[in-house]
Amino acid sequence: MIIVADNLRITLPAIGRAVNRLDPAPIRQMVRSCRDAGAQAIDINSGPLSRSPEEKMTFLVRTVQAAVELPIVLDTANPRAVAAGLAASRCKAIINGVSLAPKRLERILPMACQYDCDIIGYLLHPNGHVPADASGRMEAAVALFGAMQSAGIPPERIIIDPVVAPLAWQDGNRQNMAVLEVIQTLPDLLGFPVRTIAGLSNLTSGAPDPETRRRYQGAFLPMLAAAGLSMILLNVLDPAIMRTVDASLRITGGTVFSWQ
Amino acid sequence: MIIVADNLRITLPAIGRAVNRLDPAPIRQMVRSCRDAGAQAIDINSGPLSRSPEEKMTFLVRTVQAAVELPIVLDTANPRAVAAGLAASRCKAIINGVSLAPKRLERILPMACQYDCDIIGYLLHPNGHVPADASGRMEAAVALFGAMQSAGIPPERIIIDPVVAPLAWQDGNRQNMAVLEVIQTLPDLLGFPVRTIAGLSNLTSGAPDPETRRRYQGAFLPMLAAAGLSMILLNVLDPAIMRTVDASLRITGGTVFSWQ
Repeated sequence: MIIVADNLRITLPAIGRAVNRLDPAPIRQMVRSCRDAGAQAIDINSGPLSRSPEEKMTFLVRTVQAAVELPIVLDTANPRAVAAGLAASRCKAIINGVSLAPKRLERILPMACQYDCDIIGYLLHPNGHVPADASGRMEAAVALFGAMQSAGIPPERIIIDPVVAPLAWQDGNRQNMAVLEVIQTLPDLLGFPVRTIAGLSNLTSGAPDPETRRRYQGAFLPMLAAAGLSMILLNVLDPAIMRTVDASLRITGGTVFSWQ
Repeated sequence: MIIVADNLRITLPAIGRAVNRLDPAPIRQMVRSCRDAGAQAIDINSGPLSRSPEEKMTFLVRTVQAAVELPIVLDTANPRAVAAGLAASRCKAIINGVSLAPKRLERILPMACQYDCDIIGYLLHPNGHVPADASGRMEAAVALFGAMQSAGIPPERIIIDPVVAPLAWQDGNRQNMAVLEVIQTLPDLLGFPVRTIAGLSNLTSGAPDPETRRRYQGAFLPMLAAAGLSMILLNVLDPAIMRTVDASLRITGGTVFSWQ
């Protein structure tokens, strides 16, 4: 399970200001902290970047890559920002991502082909809604896989995000059990060892305090690891969560176990 | 997932002394603490009770049942102690348990029939060794299920223990991934919703300190819950583990979620 930092978010005031001013220092500091905490990749969550998407994404990618030697994930809904990020990156970036929404598929799939890069596909209905259960997610996976294949994207480039639901949703816990089922059965369904990714922070949207957030994330994370998740997007700057990541990896990993 | 306290162990000096002196006070105090901490059943781990097994098990059962209104689990390898415990219990006790070892099967299965009580079956080879992988455990499950059926025990009385392995064993982590697989697939294999139980403490035998023990138990417990485990045997007096139990149950339970 590869650990992707979800910490670099433009919605954080210090990061938002840094992007607007094209000031690399706060971004550099953030991603170096993430690397030191154990991040194996950096998600650049730039949001839609409605103003100057090319300039801002180029700045973000260059700043991150000047600070750390880690793979980057371009986390934006804006195809112009994706294009700029792919062009600016000195190694293959991961596109995060597409769903069955036709407009984004049309714009973004050709870029994934052109750059021969990994691309994350969200298991959402074409209208953006989260499927109600595991079979709805499976249907979305089959449709998404078909669309990607038609666009010429090789199967090994596809990473599926089954969409972790906030527990506070009316059916949040059932949804997340469906997420586990999908992660576990998708390789059989699609007939190849398809990789999966999940965002852990979404689980605890609306949690009343950090301790509660940590407790639920700390319980769901091992379930994701045991289900066979390939990549986990999380707050790497929370040492308690990172200790749970480490223990989960030592239990689920096929390597010789050691306590430390 | 039903929470069974593993705290009442004759190997604890205070409990061992209390049993030898037939002094109910320390036992009463222990099981009341367990109940207050959230135990839903009490495992009476009496060990082999080589001297006066009948008297001691009768004393243990009566003392526990006078102190708390909880189901009891008779955790002993001694058939004479099992018989005494079943006779002394004012409600149906759970026998913990049998494996494929022929001598114990012969002695204990008829008692399970006579008392029409639940019985735990360990997935071990007839010689007592732990199977090397999931398929070895599955074979043991099929054999054990067959032996119990032949003895007239109804399927719904059987609880399977797939035997959690110490992580410190050479192949401990692989073994425990096999444990998860067995818990998940056993109902399909045996063709009915077979219940399962696991002992969490065994996972961290030899752990260097309580914090390490807590971390690994806290990561494996949610995996067990997500696999569909029916009963968990653990140290209910560790509040950190009990918080993880609670979070795991809220995530895996089909009930309406609430943070607290």
